[in-house]
Amino acid sequence: MGRALAAATLELGHEVIVISGPVSVKYPRQAELIRVVSTAELLEACRKVFPQCQGLIAAAAPCDYQPIRIEPHKMAKRGRRLVLQLRETPDVVAALGAEKKPGQWLVGFALETEDRRFRALAKLEKKRCDLMVLNGPQAIDSTRNRVEIIDRSGRLLDTLEGPKKEVARGILRVIHRRLVWPSGG
Amino acid sequence: MGRALAAATLELGHEVIVISGPVSVKYPRQAELIRVVSTAELLEACRKVFPQCQGLIAAAAPCDYQPIRIEPHKMAKRGRRLVLQLRETPDVVAALGAEKKPGQWLVGFALETEDRRFRALAKLEKKRCDLMVLNGPQAIDSTRNRVEIIDRSGRLLDTLEGPKKEVARGILRVIHRRLVWPSGG
Repeated sequence: MGRALAAATLELGHEVIVISGPVSVKYPRQAELIRVVSTAELLEACRKVFPQCQGLIAAAAPCDYQPIRIEPHKMAKRGRRLVLQLRETPDVVAALGAEKKPGQWLVGFALETEDRRFRALAKLEKKRCDLMVLNGPQAIDSTRNRVEIIDRSGRLLDTLEGPKKEVARGILRVIHRRLVWPSGG
Repeated sequence: MGRALAAATLELGHEVIVISGPVSVKYPRQAELIRVVSTAELLEACRKVFPQCQGLIAAAAPCDYQPIRIEPHKMAKRGRRLVLQLRETPDVVAALGAEKKPGQWLVGFALETEDRRFRALAKLEKKRCDLMVLNGPQAIDSTRNRVEIIDRSGRLLDTLEGPKKEVARGILRVIHRRLVWPSGG
């Protein structure tokens, strides 16, 4: 979905910076590419480039948890259970939402498995997004997607279904209409 | 390393069955490919095909642990720590080692970060392997590797370093000399 969104954004004549985790996806060459591994690195990279950007489309699915203790060596199996203590990683979109300046926009993605619209609207508010794109786990590793786009009032603006490339173009049409040129200019 | 070993084995005129987890590696077309996801599926697939094979090169790094409880839905962040209870997955190579028939051979891989040779020899004995290939974490996601090959007595047979393709050919030379044609035939 990230690659399709980058391509759709480039098609509309924008400059694009992709911040990506360690995935095997090939992004469009015309986009500037910044590689990160951890959620903390993703936040750091976003904070560095977001101030120069008009908006951010947050389609990445960064890891929500990280181990509290990292073993320096490989752990040998010991024939018993293992208990992993994890702490939450920083909320990247919420951090950027709190720092965004007037005129900047933020489009979040929510992947939910139940109470989808309710949870997506709660996320939109918490993270101070302008729009939220809802999708389900069916989107993962698929060439197709089905999304709903909701605005700050919880109104369903659009439902898009099809190849990710087409869905990305549809999302960009909504972003353009509502956030880039909201007065129809 | 799995792809390089499959290619080196095909080069020597053998039939090859690759059992692979969900990785983006492209295996040689001449090899039969069986896809698995979990460690339990890996063991099941190995048990199905191993009886027809002369030998097994166990270069996969299956997951050592699995969650005791699997959530049916996506877990929402709750602002607090998460404790994951994990249990050990089955030891695939040890299971096959216990089931191998006379004439069949088993080459294990050990990725160790400390006490490498001692741990590798302990693994070789526990898993009833004929040879053990030692490598370090530097091998992961690298095009190069550095390995040591030890036999059942703990003797160092060979040290190989270079592109994985070349290292795989070297490993196959040792397998041929010691296991496939041990009498030099």
